[in-house]
Amino acid sequence: MPELRQDPTTKEWIIIAKERTKRPHEFHRPVSQRPKAEYEESCPFCLGNESRTPPEVLAYRQEERANSPGWTVRVFPNKYAALEPEGTTVRQVEADFFWKMDGVGYHEVIVETPLHNRFLPSMDWQEVQAILQAYRQRYLFLREDKRVRYILIFKNHGEAAGTSLAHPHSQLVATSVVPANLRRKYEEAGRYFDATGRCIHCDALEAELRAKRRVVMETERFVVYHPFASQTPFETWIVPRRYCPSFAQATNEEIADLSVVLKKTLGSLSAALNDPDYNYVVNSAPIAGEDEEYYLWHLQILPRLGRLAGFELGSGMRINPAQPEETARFIRELDS
Amino acid sequence: MPELRQDPTTKEWIIIAKERTKRPHEFHRPVSQRPKAEYEESCPFCLGNESRTPPEVLAYRQEERANSPGWTVRVFPNKYAALEPEGTTVRQVEADFFWKMDGVGYHEVIVETPLHNRFLPSMDWQEVQAILQAYRQRYLFLREDKRVRYILIFKNHGEAAGTSLAHPHSQLVATSVVPANLRRKYEEAGRYFDATGRCIHCDALEAELRAKRRVVMETERFVVYHPFASQTPFETWIVPRRYCPSFAQATNEEIADLSVVLKKTLGSLSAALNDPDYNYVVNSAPIAGEDEEYYLWHLQILPRLGRLAGFELGSGMRINPAQPEETARFIRELDS
Repeated sequence: MPELRQDPTTKEWIIIAKERTKRPHEFHRPVSQRPKAEYEESCPFCLGNESRTPPEVLAYRQEERANSPGWTVRVFPNKYAALEPEGTTVRQVEADFFWKMDGVGYHEVIVETPLHNRFLPSMDWQEVQAILQAYRQRYLFLREDKRVRYILIFKNHGEAAGTSLAHPHSQLVATSVVPANLRRKYEEAGRYFDATGRCIHCDALEAELRAKRRVVMETERFVVYHPFASQTPFETWIVPRRYCPSFAQATNEEIADLSVVLKKTLGSLSAALNDPDYNYVVNSAPIAGEDEEYYLWHLQILPRLGRLAGFELGSGMRINPAQPEETARFIRELDS
Repeated sequence: MPELRQDPTTKEWIIIAKERTKRPHEFHRPVSQRPKAEYEESCPFCLGNESRTPPEVLAYRQEERANSPGWTVRVFPNKYAALEPEGTTVRQVEADFFWKMDGVGYHEVIVETPLHNRFLPSMDWQEVQAILQAYRQRYLFLREDKRVRYILIFKNHGEAAGTSLAHPHSQLVATSVVPANLRRKYEEAGRYFDATGRCIHCDALEAELRAKRRVVMETERFVVYHPFASQTPFETWIVPRRYCPSFAQATNEEIADLSVVLKKTLGSLSAALNDPDYNYVVNSAPIAGEDEEYYLWHLQILPRLGRLAGFELGSGMRINPAQPEETARFIRELDS
């Protein structure tokens, strides 16, 4: 019998499909597809190719010579930016009915390492820490622009995850609107808070800790689990124990702990699935909600093991062919 | 300057990206990947292979001998069904917090033709009509099950659209919950109706007819257009002129007209993009909303020309690298 599970934070139902169920090891990828060389002549993100990107807005480097080698992490506007800083947020109307506005915002690339083949699980944790610090630094800088309502940091790893450039990098998009999807999720959390006086995301974390079966790792500051209503096999959440609505508010201690946890978590996924393509997303509250009491930031990892088809696109529901209890156990056993 | 456009029916913002803009012809696919032969030994949907599928629940056939050759359209439960008829809709609770229930529902396959290589654009319109009649017949039958709250009919065409079986077929999923996404879209439409006394979907259709630039075809009963806030290049909607919340309520005249329009629309897309992979979805109101005055059923075609990446998965917003005005003009010029 298949099962429907409701995501407590979005209220969407997920189908855990029985007839399509696969064992965790069946998601193992036959061949890893990452680059082998440290340097790739044609890659604009590689060391020495700095002139092929837009000028940097942040870099961690030894010498203070911008846009030259010597950096460890480097941030610049996306050359093919989805949003741009110029423009206004005044709405215009078309055909007396449709609303549109300038595509105001920021779209940046965070190059994580000068080396073309150095992916997160193989880095030292201090290298991961520097990446996370760059995320936070850009977040804190861009949120000062009063037109910015929401900031999303994410990573597309591999072609199935939507990237064409293999060099390790993340991206940041700052939007002048709160996405309607997030607005609704946030309103749900607000209603829950009004009724209970509690944060629904914190209660979900506590329920996962009570249920225990889907938890894969715990540290002093973070819990890692495969959520009850996972959208996809091996979906993994890294959630802080301390209440905090936005990644912008993470402390240095949390960033340091997260570096170790993220490296370990991605390493385990890579070992379990043989280097799968994945996205991760750093979910934060809208900027205007940073002082509210009902959103908990978290890092969500979504392995890209299948395709969204017509049912998913049409309904918004997802069909997950794996049990999160089983995938979590698989990871725990691998780690032990 | 990129542009943000709000989908009037969901309130989600779409980014029409300028720096990534492609001209319509750039989406042309180099090589068509459809099968060439009428029969494929290994295909369970081919004529003569009926014993390899679950027993049929509907077939249009000359002789009354079920599960044998002689049919033109054939419907049976999906062998790998996401939902199953047995079970109850009683909710259960886990860890005092999470809600789940049996995966009750129906998941059926509609094989559109006995021929492995006969796709919609190459069919006679009467063959398309028979497929649409089968959709409606199954819809009307399954909605009698009181546990069914919503029925989605869809088609996955090609690997990028999530199918592994090339034989022309569609699917139907009947769910025992209204998807939360649809519930919200429906609530938006309800609020609009409360305020204006009008159907927001009908007003969107009228606004598209006023704007005119995105309309690609009009018939007596249908309008075909690339919507203002298209999620993806060449997204195409086929919308009835007559108010009608559910596909289940389409008349025979509408089905006949839609057959011609659908064949023509998919044929134009195939010519424009060289046989792209796509999904289409027949959007209807929830079953309990069939007598309300604020939902208009429509057929939505989503070509699969790119990958959803971290930004789209994390925010729910979409980045569309094409202007719907331009893609619509491209189709109109191709057709003229």
